Amino acid sequence: MFYALDILGTIAFAISGVLVAIHKRMDLFGILIIAFVTAVGGGTLRDLLIGNTPVSWMRDITYTYVILVSAVFAIIFRNKINYLRTSLFLFDTIGIGLYTVVGIQKGLNAELHPIICIALGTITASFGGVIRDILCNEIPVIFRKEIYATACILGGVIYFVLSQFPIKNNIVFIIAGLVVIVIRLLAVKFKISLPTIYSKEKV
Amino acid sequence: MFYALDILGTIAFAISGVLVAIHKRMDLFGILIIAFVTAVGGGTLRDLLIGNTPVSWMRDITYTYVILVSAVFAIIFRNKINYLRTSLFLFDTIGIGLYTVVGIQKGLNAELHPIICIALGTITASFGGVIRDILCNEIPVIFRKEIYATACILGGVIYFVLSQFPIKNNIVFIIAGLVVIVIRLLAVKFKISLPTIYSKEKV
Amino acid sequence: MFYALDILGTIAFAISGVLVAIHKRMDLFGILIIAFVTAVGGGTLRDLLIGNTPVSWMRDITYTYVILVSAVFAIIFRNKINYLRTSLFLFDTIGIGLYTVVGIQKGLNAELHPIICIALGTITASFGGVIRDILCNEIPVIFRKEIYATACILGGVIYFVLSQFPIKNNIVFIIAGLVVIVIRLLAVKFKISLPTIYSKEKV
Repeated sequence: MFYALDILGTIAFAISGVLVAIHKRMDLFGILIIAFVTAVGGGTLRDLLIGNTPVSWMRDITYTYVILVSAVFAIIFRNKINYLRTSLFLFDTIGIGLYTVVGIQKGLNAELHPIICIALGTITASFGGVIRDILCNEIPVIFRKEIYATACILGGVIYFVLSQFPIKNNIVFIIAGLVVIVIRLLAVKFKISLPTIYSKEKV
Repeated sequence: MFYALDILGTIAFAISGVLVAIHKRMDLFGILIIAFVTAVGGGTLRDLLIGNTPVSWMRDITYTYVILVSAVFAIIFRNKINYLRTSLFLFDTIGIGLYTVVGIQKGLNAELHPIICIALGTITASFGGVIRDILCNEIPVIFRKEIYATACILGGVIYFVLSQFPIKNNIVFIIAGLVVIVIRLLAVKFKISLPTIYSKEKV
Repeated sequence: MFYALDILGTIAFAISGVLVAIHKRMDLFGILIIAFVTAVGGGTLRDLLIGNTPVSWMRDITYTYVILVSAVFAIIFRNKINYLRTSLFLFDTIGIGLYTVVGIQKGLNAELHPIICIALGTITASFGGVIRDILCNEIPVIFRKEIYATACILGGVIYFVLSQFPIKNNIVFIIAGLVVIVIRLLAVKFKISLPTIYSKEKV
């Protein structure tokens, strides 16, 4: 089940990359690269930081196929994809929830501190989008808008709180992933975002 | 012979980095860093992704010397270097051809899937320029213009097609490298580039 | 003593990250990330390049706590922090001196060439700021202003010159660190910077 959700997340991230790249008027190669980077960027940074090399997508060719097919699909249906925005947003959010949990799991396998595991989960879920925005020459969205990474962090905290109780590990993971998803959905629905910090002197 | 071409490629990439950095009015240190990053960036990313550390240029000091000498040369002759543009472009293209082949070889050594090997070849050949452009705060050129990475990918495909036949491995590598070089030369000569994908709604 | 200075450097870098992020009007999460990246970015790149994974801050949770506390402190006192600029600049400079020495040490442990060790010291000291500037969508400051990395390089050269003589290793490290600090202080005091290289044709 995890693997299926992982693939769904990969599809959503790849499509979101395509949409951003088209908006930036990139050529076909640029679009494919941005799709790829958005989908695997977070997991790649995570794997590099913990020394898990060759990185995941190099060892399992499935990701590459899924991203290529998703990107071609998104390019062909680029003018109709706005009708799909809601389902895309759902996929994307599911992907974030799952990527958070996957990142935490990898951190636990490497016997790292819980806070570091939460950081790895957040990196896995959000840094694909950060790298996408850097390549497109914009300040990464997650630094400016939306409870995005915050949802990942809260999900991670929930995971470590629940794992103190005698609950099955799989169920704890599922709850943590759902927390990420629900927080993000609620934040977008009610337009909650973190406060910007202003400096009197600078403004 | 490979090593000599590798050094030639390093020289050309270092010089191209210097020219871009001067255009951005960087100071001496900035120029040297951009030269260095352009020359070794692709190989460094490749080595990190497959876990081949310390990365290549850290284990062979020759690259560092070659880059420093090339950069000093380019800075001194910066006003005359336009006369050299054709030879520079040739060196650069030879470098791309070779770096593609080197990257594929490293992927094969790590027993990765052919598609991943081609990706590694393309990364080795093109991501030095991508990192250079990011450090200079521009959208990477290869995402917008020219059949650059596409040439690397096609060369990689040729390699794996030919390696199905009973041809000596060295010869297959040379042909693959030449294919990259010829495609790029033809693309620039006839101004072929990949189509930009427009979205009706966004434009 | 090294560890204490390391922590001081971490504090100064974290606070400098907060100030830049506030200036860019990032949200709370963005500010924390920029603080974190500025403080650990250089050491992380160094660890990745030499294959020292999981990277340092993942194995010692102290860095994370220090950065969080420093960042919260800087956010709360953001309007008063200008009075502290001199002490901040001192911390920052001490941090650079120490980070240079730490980087050289790590290179020596990995049995790398002296020039590569100096590069590692410079990377450790300066690339946190580079990544900070890239994430904030600016051309990295060190490529345009101030004898920053140059101080690190000169300190590294002094280290390897002195280590030819029969001087205790610890003392050589301290002298090298002090050289970095003094050069930077003098450079800022007397507004020394590297020349920008202009190209007649481009300008």
